[in-house]
Amino acid sequence: MIAKLRIPTFEDVRDAQARIAGNAHRTPVLTSRTANAMVDGELFFKAENLQRAGAFKFRGAYNAVSALDADARRKGVVAFSSGNHAQALAYAATLLGAPSVIVMPKDAPEIKVAATRGYGAEVVFFDRYSDDREAIARAISEERGMAMIPPFDHPDIIAGQGTAALELIEEVGELDMLITPLGGGGLLAGCALSAKALNPDCRVIGVEPEAGNDGQQSLQKGEVVRIAPPKSIADGALTTFVGYHNFPILQSKVDGIVTVSDGQLVSTMRFFAERMKIIVEPTGCLGASAALNNVVDCAGKRVGIVLSGGNVDLKALSGFFAGA
Amino acid sequence: MIAKLRIPTFEDVRDAQARIAGNAHRTPVLTSRTANAMVDGELFFKAENLQRAGAFKFRGAYNAVSALDADARRKGVVAFSSGNHAQALAYAATLLGAPSVIVMPKDAPEIKVAATRGYGAEVVFFDRYSDDREAIARAISEERGMAMIPPFDHPDIIAGQGTAALELIEEVGELDMLITPLGGGGLLAGCALSAKALNPDCRVIGVEPEAGNDGQQSLQKGEVVRIAPPKSIADGALTTFVGYHNFPILQSKVDGIVTVSDGQLVSTMRFFAERMKIIVEPTGCLGASAALNNVVDCAGKRVGIVLSGGNVDLKALSGFFAGA
Repeated sequence: MIAKLRIPTFEDVRDAQARIAGNAHRTPVLTSRTANAMVDGELFFKAENLQRAGAFKFRGAYNAVSALDADARRKGVVAFSSGNHAQALAYAATLLGAPSVIVMPKDAPEIKVAATRGYGAEVVFFDRYSDDREAIARAISEERGMAMIPPFDHPDIIAGQGTAALELIEEVGELDMLITPLGGGGLLAGCALSAKALNPDCRVIGVEPEAGNDGQQSLQKGEVVRIAPPKSIADGALTTFVGYHNFPILQSKVDGIVTVSDGQLVSTMRFFAERMKIIVEPTGCLGASAALNNVVDCAGKRVGIVLSGGNVDLKALSGFFAGA
Repeated sequence: MIAKLRIPTFEDVRDAQARIAGNAHRTPVLTSRTANAMVDGELFFKAENLQRAGAFKFRGAYNAVSALDADARRKGVVAFSSGNHAQALAYAATLLGAPSVIVMPKDAPEIKVAATRGYGAEVVFFDRYSDDREAIARAISEERGMAMIPPFDHPDIIAGQGTAALELIEEVGELDMLITPLGGGGLLAGCALSAKALNPDCRVIGVEPEAGNDGQQSLQKGEVVRIAPPKSIADGALTTFVGYHNFPILQSKVDGIVTVSDGQLVSTMRFFAERMKIIVEPTGCLGASAALNNVVDCAGKRVGIVLSGGNVDLKALSGFFAGA
């Protein structure tokens, strides 16, 4: 049972850009001679790990909350997530004066619960073994009249995420290729809208963890394919299917989907820490890892790569670095 | 026996800015609502950890090599250093087509030797227990006609480092205060030239490690004070005296020098990694640590802070994070 879909366009990305201006960070574009030499091309890294709340998710969340009318905003927003979307939505809602409820698993790391509360959200817990988190969120939405803001399957979320590629291309000029991580498809779909509108010849590539290539399968099969929950250190891309608003955009505007291994992600995290002095979470390394490991051939090309986030705790980070 | 000093001015910083344009990165200015809340002020972090070769040192090195005439440049440059200056000078020389020799201790970490060679330098070793590194460098300078480029006590180095503050103020506008790390005084002196020229009311503060406050003592005494080699994790600020070109600028343009402890530096490194997703080496945290620990009062002020570098190896980084 799918409600009628409102598929966003590049005009929606432009609207989102106007809404988030001055609120989301205009994140820097970083370059590295070493990285360029590794691929024999020119790489432009859009550092969304330096975005507010540590990930590109703030763009979509802020856009979605600002798109609500005054009455809906007063009632607030609700989401189920324990990841970057939860914190981004809480933060965006607070900045816009809207209450927010985040439905999180009882056993979510204390640091994530504290961060979400720190951004101003009310946290409601569910038991991941016995409760239906979506039903809980939906009940809260109905009782309190709060808008449900899902992490990726929503036109305003997709449009918001597309501003990352729009800013990148505005800053560095025309690209031959754009590579982004792919989980539920919010970032990839939004960025594909921008890239293809600004230059139809720009190739757009999504990158999934090897263990969870549902997006790749979906494009091959021509329909949304659901997979079993995958295991990968790319914990922001463990979705089991791409969004229904996202899929038609992926079909029409994405040129290919590739995968990388956890080992490749770790070596890319090390590269960013050692050579570029930035912390990129495993999911955030997906696009860069495909380029730096020559899974995608960047030779002779100008390639934009979105580093989607940097939210990895220091203990986990030390573990990744010690292991390699 | 001190040769006649050529003390740089803000005009020299302007000249340096023109020389390094398009060669040094114009590094981003980062902000954090959390950091602002911690000090009840507005902090602007100039992220020189994202500079080429990982530290502000590239600015001065590139300026110094470009200031050489064609003949001198063909003969090349020599320096003794095992730190960020060595790599920055090697890199700058290579980019400008000049040969470079770096005199390093025999027991320097292999990774630093490899990085310095990777940037194109010839590495000459000395025994830190029996050899005089300055004499070795000077002999090479005389034999091969190479210009000695010291890490801080040189007008072109000072002028180059001053471009960091110049860019920062150009980007964010007038500041009430500017805080930088202080080792030999290249960064602090150069940045003080910029800050005071653009706004004489801007307070300029240098920050040293608690264990090595020779700069503080020097300003108090009115002459360059030499101290025993200090022990601190701020390995880029273990100088035993500030430079002779630097001191008169510190005297006339710096409003105060404060110190922070190694423990404060570690907590600041953690803050940057956890909240801002960037890796800042201990020395690079000196200025920020003074602000975030309220050693310098930033309440109600617009404060620029130079994060001077990010060159810390991942093993050391994990150690710092594990210990806190």
